[in-house]
Amino acid sequence: MNRYSFNSDYREGAHPDILNALIRTNLNQEEGYGYDTYSKEAISLIKNVIQSPNADIHFVSGGTQANLSVISSVLKPYESVIAATTGHIAVHEAGAIETTGHKINTIEAKDGKLTPKSIKSIIDIHQDEHMVKPRLVFISNSTEIGTVYKKYELESLSVFCKQNNLFLYLDGARLASALTSDTNDISLPELSKLVDIFYIGGTKNGALFGEAIVINNNALKENFRFILKQKGALLAKGRMLGVQFLEFFKDNLFFELGKHSNVMAKKLSDGIKSAGYEFMTTPVSNQIFPILPNKVIDKLQRKYGFYIWKDYNKNDSVVRLVTSWATKEKNINKFLIDLKTD
Amino acid sequence: MNRYSFNSDYREGAHPDILNALIRTNLNQEEGYGYDTYSKEAISLIKNVIQSPNADIHFVSGGTQANLSVISSVLKPYESVIAATTGHIAVHEAGAIETTGHKINTIEAKDGKLTPKSIKSIIDIHQDEHMVKPRLVFISNSTEIGTVYKKYELESLSVFCKQNNLFLYLDGARLASALTSDTNDISLPELSKLVDIFYIGGTKNGALFGEAIVINNNALKENFRFILKQKGALLAKGRMLGVQFLEFFKDNLFFELGKHSNVMAKKLSDGIKSAGYEFMTTPVSNQIFPILPNKVIDKLQRKYGFYIWKDYNKNDSVVRLVTSWATKEKNINKFLIDLKTD
Amino acid sequence: MNRYSFNSDYREGAHPDILNALIRTNLNQEEGYGYDTYSKEAISLIKNVIQSPNADIHFVSGGTQANLSVISSVLKPYESVIAATTGHIAVHEAGAIETTGHKINTIEAKDGKLTPKSIKSIIDIHQDEHMVKPRLVFISNSTEIGTVYKKYELESLSVFCKQNNLFLYLDGARLASALTSDTNDISLPELSKLVDIFYIGGTKNGALFGEAIVINNNALKENFRFILKQKGALLAKGRMLGVQFLEFFKDNLFFELGKHSNVMAKKLSDGIKSAGYEFMTTPVSNQIFPILPNKVIDKLQRKYGFYIWKDYNKNDSVVRLVTSWATKEKNINKFLIDLKTD
Amino acid sequence: MNRYSFNSDYREGAHPDILNALIRTNLNQEEGYGYDTYSKEAISLIKNVIQSPNADIHFVSGGTQANLSVISSVLKPYESVIAATTGHIAVHEAGAIETTGHKINTIEAKDGKLTPKSIKSIIDIHQDEHMVKPRLVFISNSTEIGTVYKKYELESLSVFCKQNNLFLYLDGARLASALTSDTNDISLPELSKLVDIFYIGGTKNGALFGEAIVINNNALKENFRFILKQKGALLAKGRMLGVQFLEFFKDNLFFELGKHSNVMAKKLSDGIKSAGYEFMTTPVSNQIFPILPNKVIDKLQRKYGFYIWKDYNKNDSVVRLVTSWATKEKNINKFLIDLKTD
Repeated sequence: MNRYSFNSDYREGAHPDILNALIRTNLNQEEGYGYDTYSKEAISLIKNVIQSPNADIHFVSGGTQANLSVISSVLKPYESVIAATTGHIAVHEAGAIETTGHKINTIEAKDGKLTPKSIKSIIDIHQDEHMVKPRLVFISNSTEIGTVYKKYELESLSVFCKQNNLFLYLDGARLASALTSDTNDISLPELSKLVDIFYIGGTKNGALFGEAIVINNNALKENFRFILKQKGALLAKGRMLGVQFLEFFKDNLFFELGKHSNVMAKKLSDGIKSAGYEFMTTPVSNQIFPILPNKVIDKLQRKYGFYIWKDYNKNDSVVRLVTSWATKEKNINKFLIDLKTD
Repeated sequence: MNRYSFNSDYREGAHPDILNALIRTNLNQEEGYGYDTYSKEAISLIKNVIQSPNADIHFVSGGTQANLSVISSVLKPYESVIAATTGHIAVHEAGAIETTGHKINTIEAKDGKLTPKSIKSIIDIHQDEHMVKPRLVFISNSTEIGTVYKKYELESLSVFCKQNNLFLYLDGARLASALTSDTNDISLPELSKLVDIFYIGGTKNGALFGEAIVINNNALKENFRFILKQKGALLAKGRMLGVQFLEFFKDNLFFELGKHSNVMAKKLSDGIKSAGYEFMTTPVSNQIFPILPNKVIDKLQRKYGFYIWKDYNKNDSVVRLVTSWATKEKNINKFLIDLKTD
Repeated sequence: MNRYSFNSDYREGAHPDILNALIRTNLNQEEGYGYDTYSKEAISLIKNVIQSPNADIHFVSGGTQANLSVISSVLKPYESVIAATTGHIAVHEAGAIETTGHKINTIEAKDGKLTPKSIKSIIDIHQDEHMVKPRLVFISNSTEIGTVYKKYELESLSVFCKQNNLFLYLDGARLASALTSDTNDISLPELSKLVDIFYIGGTKNGALFGEAIVINNNALKENFRFILKQKGALLAKGRMLGVQFLEFFKDNLFFELGKHSNVMAKKLSDGIKSAGYEFMTTPVSNQIFPILPNKVIDKLQRKYGFYIWKDYNKNDSVVRLVTSWATKEKNINKFLIDLKTD
Repeated sequence: MNRYSFNSDYREGAHPDILNALIRTNLNQEEGYGYDTYSKEAISLIKNVIQSPNADIHFVSGGTQANLSVISSVLKPYESVIAATTGHIAVHEAGAIETTGHKINTIEAKDGKLTPKSIKSIIDIHQDEHMVKPRLVFISNSTEIGTVYKKYELESLSVFCKQNNLFLYLDGARLASALTSDTNDISLPELSKLVDIFYIGGTKNGALFGEAIVINNNALKENFRFILKQKGALLAKGRMLGVQFLEFFKDNLFFELGKHSNVMAKKLSDGIKSAGYEFMTTPVSNQIFPILPNKVIDKLQRKYGFYIWKDYNKNDSVVRLVTSWATKEKNINKFLIDLKTD
């Protein structure tokens, strides 16, 4: 590919520290399926970082796998999960959740976030056995359209879910970017306490691959490894996942990589703003959604890879630009120059 | 772990060449989800190696994932898969196949291999809509108990399946060891032509992880990527799988690693034989099953890790010893000395 | 129950002719599971009535069972079904379709009907393996909100589906009422030719229970009885279903009962109109949806059973009134008097 | 059919009292989906008869539907059900249980009965997350091969299941025949107390159709109607099922019909014995399995319908003869004469 890609945050491999850790530990003989010493250490470390000593933690290889394992583990056959229409599980997982047998009740949300009020609108109309029973609320932070939940928003969701016998699940594919966003006002330990279950995303934050599922609610812990095995989500060499998450959290790498992607995104959005363009949602994380003239988009796409999100009007479209742990400032600068000279 | 482990062939990481390839390609920007240049090259290369230019090839992260994706893709809701009672899908995948909705019809087989006759016994009693419709035959090579199919056995299975409107699927988790076994008399291209679909195992042959699913039968090709996405089996950084399989097949690494594990296993089984012990199945691949006195087993387990497969009689048990691409001759020698001095 | 019920069209048992037929045939020994002589005769008769001599016909006990059997039979694991948000499968089947593994793509439709344009809006955004593949279009006639498809509407849906590689499935739970509606302009044989598969509803048209699934498209016929058995939909005494459908179609009972329910509904809606009230949808079948003041509703509910469909504004609500084969004119008259004297 | 059929106990319609009850109640308006007055009365009555005042009772239309609803309701995704290889769910339900996602662990049992010892053999080898977790034990009474559990056998199963955290489920498709067998020594209330959940079979005991699922264990009661709706097992006119079970239990009809079938079977087996033939299993219920010369079988099949169960040796086969509530003594007599004159 000759074009520089802003398509996504998984176009490069892994941060060098992570690769080095894999090399360093490569020839040690270790137990399979996640019982290796690295995974155990990583789990212990993450419990400290999130200040949830009783959490159960499991590593899996990707986000769809995390979502389908968690949701099919939590729900009884007739129970459903509530998500925003923009939610990853609602559109971009090829029916992975339905294939495990569960309906997704979707809610339109301009900013990609759920609220107690919007969830209540679903609960109110599901009241007998002719309909599914909503039991789980799925949110993403950052959301699929780049927005970030405020602390009070998560708190109100948490309270509402408890009051309404709903479990709250947070998809943290881009949690590093959310937590290091300028707009963020919640810490990882605080966030952990507000949800029943969530996952910490590695793939989109500089790991080769891997997500860490954190189960806080005791009622959801039992036999989770059976679900993982059954879904093909238990890797024989689970050590790979342990090694990577150990590297993420032994110092501060996880947050540093998230921060870098945000800094790059901010530079990019500031430049786009100063060139006079608006955004579909206020840019606060590593995904930004400027509204650009179609002519400008055509020219930019000769040099840069990125997705057109949707039509905005006859002449303009929303595009998605994604930065990552590996994005280089010089490419941002070039993009902005090309934008302005177009 | 202080004990040297003969528990399995996935106790170490990856062969250094494979790790180096990951490092070498790490920072190149690539398409996600298997559309990267490395995966494309690897697919092209494997087609040459198996001499099946029309095959469709997909990479996934593990064997259970390969099996559940393939089987749920091939079968209609009421169709079943036939397997030996020792078959991996029958016992050791936590019901992964049933969770996709399909019954496994099992057949007792002393040597872990299916035959036209044994398959026919299942077909004969499944004749109307009150029973499932067997449609797929699942075999492993090498089998779960270390045996290897002869060419004429695979040919007769292939002919029988075609005659009986059955698809034939070969689980090649340990295909490298099977094909480089002294007892083997079939080439990879020949084997490929005899089955509708199979997978080439990487995880147990020195990859970090990864299996290559090969679809030869056109009827089974359509929309397989939808199945993979839906099962959580499409990795965002699919490049990792492409890079590893490229390394396997660009020279001869795949076969060399399989051969090494066999050579180590042969040394081990020769030594055990010369010490006067029998085997549950004739040792021909990298899994061997000697019958040892329980007292001897107890002593060996202080220094070596391995699984007790099953009771043989009051005083003796069958154990499983597995060698790998990483097994060192000196550890074999030590084990044999310890065996004999016990 | 002291209140006269307009809640639904399944509050009484069966038309006396149907019960008599069950008595008449009761002690004859017959094959089980639908291979009885009555079912065979009924199938032959229905093929004549619908003028589709090559159709496959199967009887099941209810509508949800028909829908889940048909949809899970037609779709591959990653394929989805498109329905109106008011579609029975979308809301009122407790996730029955999702439990068989399939997503329902829903479309808002004021009149409960799908159009090529609305279906195209779904197709357009489902273009790769990160999303499900829409493959089946689900429509109901009459719809869940009492409307009836015109011939040209069904023709345009049929053409569009063929052009776009979609199957068209019609839920005929209330097909008798649809086909005998004053607004209807299509015959049963004509309708049969426009859809790949549909069912003729008995339960809501005076049978004890039972629906006849008609498969016109050869590609959807194979092994359908396996699906039925697997879903618990093959009744041991399938004769009961055959006997009832034979009675429906040997003269004209099926259409007479549908017509009666429409005549009663028309009398009811004419009276409500003449009392000055509006309707949510133009009343044309046996389900009508007048908009009544909440005070009027409260009073009527003391004497009559019916469901409040939804709020219309602060003071008024939409209610659903359903007539059936068993509705008596005198109860319509009483209701209208009570409405007007309220 | 000109031949008199001993194929099964569902070849005739319903006992006349049951048909009459349907006629008597036909035109009363009733709530749908099992909330009618007849179902409520029948539930109340059954609770008295089984002396389990806290039981939850639900009616469904057939045995496969009962089994798949119960099993998919009880089990978590990774849990399995244990059954005899002759168990109805293991062979004759077209994979209905697997389609809900669950493996069946089967046990060879000559007499079709499970024992604590045989169940333990399964438990012992399912000890980690690489295998399913057996959680439910499925037994039938009478069994699929005509045998009947003794009280002490059911007691020991009940104790074993409680000790091993297993639920015990009894399929009572032919419970009436089992409980009125000469060999039976347990009452319905006693049996009810020994199992967590069971169903009382109507279809094979003179109902038009219908089974009553009885849930004794509180842990299994919650939201069972959601499961029924989702599986298409909630009939709109659920009244039909209530009316029939009311008729079964308001006097003693249920037991009388079971007894009649046993008396007819005893007459038949006594005659066959006196003609010098042996049986595969001791005849004690309404299914008997004599071993007859193939030549005799050929002649008998010209006049009588029955299934050949399996080969016994080169010259003889096991056949299955089934009597029912409707079997007439004169046909037994004729059969015995024909047997002896052959």
